[in-house]
Amino acid sequence: MRIHIQNAPDDPLFAITGLQWDEAAACAGAARHSLTIAETKESLAAALAAAEALIAPPAALAAPFPPAPHLRLIFCTTAGVDVLAPFTHLPPHAVLVCNRGIHGEKAGDYAIMALLMLAAHMPALLAAQQEARWEPRYSSPLSGRRLTIIGLGPLGAAAAARASAFGMIVTGLTRTGASHSPCAATLPITALDETLAATDFLLLACPLTPATRNLLDRRRLSLLPSGAGVVNIGRGAVLDEEALADLLDAGHLGGAVLDVFAREPLPPDHRLWRTRNLVLTPHISADDPATYNPRTLDRFFAALAALACGAPIPNAVDFARGY
Amino acid sequence: MRIHIQNAPDDPLFAITGLQWDEAAACAGAARHSLTIAETKESLAAALAAAEALIAPPAALAAPFPPAPHLRLIFCTTAGVDVLAPFTHLPPHAVLVCNRGIHGEKAGDYAIMALLMLAAHMPALLAAQQEARWEPRYSSPLSGRRLTIIGLGPLGAAAAARASAFGMIVTGLTRTGASHSPCAATLPITALDETLAATDFLLLACPLTPATRNLLDRRRLSLLPSGAGVVNIGRGAVLDEEALADLLDAGHLGGAVLDVFAREPLPPDHRLWRTRNLVLTPHISADDPATYNPRTLDRFFAALAALACGAPIPNAVDFARGY
Repeated sequence: MRIHIQNAPDDPLFAITGLQWDEAAACAGAARHSLTIAETKESLAAALAAAEALIAPPAALAAPFPPAPHLRLIFCTTAGVDVLAPFTHLPPHAVLVCNRGIHGEKAGDYAIMALLMLAAHMPALLAAQQEARWEPRYSSPLSGRRLTIIGLGPLGAAAAARASAFGMIVTGLTRTGASHSPCAATLPITALDETLAATDFLLLACPLTPATRNLLDRRRLSLLPSGAGVVNIGRGAVLDEEALADLLDAGHLGGAVLDVFAREPLPPDHRLWRTRNLVLTPHISADDPATYNPRTLDRFFAALAALACGAPIPNAVDFARGY
Repeated sequence: MRIHIQNAPDDPLFAITGLQWDEAAACAGAARHSLTIAETKESLAAALAAAEALIAPPAALAAPFPPAPHLRLIFCTTAGVDVLAPFTHLPPHAVLVCNRGIHGEKAGDYAIMALLMLAAHMPALLAAQQEARWEPRYSSPLSGRRLTIIGLGPLGAAAAARASAFGMIVTGLTRTGASHSPCAATLPITALDETLAATDFLLLACPLTPATRNLLDRRRLSLLPSGAGVVNIGRGAVLDEEALADLLDAGHLGGAVLDVFAREPLPPDHRLWRTRNLVLTPHISADDPATYNPRTLDRFFAALAALACGAPIPNAVDFARGY
């Protein structure tokens, strides 16, 4: 099969190498493919004239999409494909597959770190450190605190498992509300309003879709009890960033840890850089460079195998649902 | 029995109240004691003329110790009693008991938070946030990293349990080297030098004694591999703070999280406030205000019961050992 890998330009950390391909292909018993690897827009267009499968980051899949008459599989190297919606620019004869499932362990570590930091008042303590102020603020352990997680995909599930091991009382909110074992309760997202009022920590771990965009608007964020904490490892536009900043600056919310933003990179003059009791990180919560490419390629080969035998392709994107 | 509680002056968060006493005494079935509670030095001296048992923070137990002819039990409200060494000023007819064992859960949460922060390069990311710089630094999960813990008392044991649940490979170093289940290995402290060379993260959780003072001196800290991280939740003087700051500023060590310092409060002009890749907190890692006093009083009553029936008193301080 003719396969093309399009890497992001100047990205030594996450660019897929020929060596990584060879190792993954050998592991999958799939050595007889014809492979091209490139970085430039022109190389992509040239490769797509013949390619049957494409591996690429979302930026390379943006409109306009070059003619790709033989393309059957588009494997996006990120889990979120929101920037490609509504997907109408993609060739209709190709299946879009997302890279869902490789981010859980790292994201679970980040989520529990963020919750521990909020419970320990670290945002205020870090601000005090900046000004050399010795101002003890004491706190209780995570155990017994009420955590609400929106989205129980790989990220939310990893966070739920960690949090429940720390004794947190975890409520999961999902589209369907289907039960999920590490959660004390799982409810459909329609129960959001009443759940927020009984939440000590809110963790956003859902994809960005028409149904989740601005889900945590000003009204809903205001339903969180005084002193509550917010963590976002999903997508920035799921919450109203201005409203969150207002609630933090006013002292209604106790703190927040954000790894994702409506606009990335966050512009240097954005108010979130200096919002009170807010810790922000530059979208690093879920990507482990030591394992990212090997796991990505393993999933690509699994998708290819399913395609070859006509089986359902894991992580094929449902365009209507948006993930 | 005549019992006196000496609270620290102006400490509403941790001052033991009459209500807390009544609840703990009822729980222990020990309601027939005669109790005094005070804060001033003069009140302590007056109470000690008659008191048979004393509950007090270490500052109230410093030399000179007022005459206390009837005193049989001194219950120190902290776990560390290093500031009272060599203990020669205390009345020889009273047993000194420390408050060991109530800090584990909170300290375990803090320790794993600190390790997660170091693994995620949070010190560097927090510095970037201060300057509104979007500079992603990626990292791998904690799983598989080598953690060395010095001291497996309640703090070290709680950290070991948490870290091993995250898949870390934990080596414990103690006086005796007796085996300890969450650790992959437990070694006597004499194996320190060779263990440091194979350490990704070093966690100090031991008491300050003549044997541990400056244990992590400049030579030993330099044995840590490049990029290693250091966490201290024990006592500041266990490590050479100047040497640690030099190794951090030079970029040899990857980061550090310190909650304890040789001098507390840390003076505003101390270099640690501004050392590179260092997060510091004001000795808050182990004290949970929601449970501190009830658990303290439970332990006091256990000590009192042991004293009354001539049984060995839990957490009686061994003056030669220093804890």
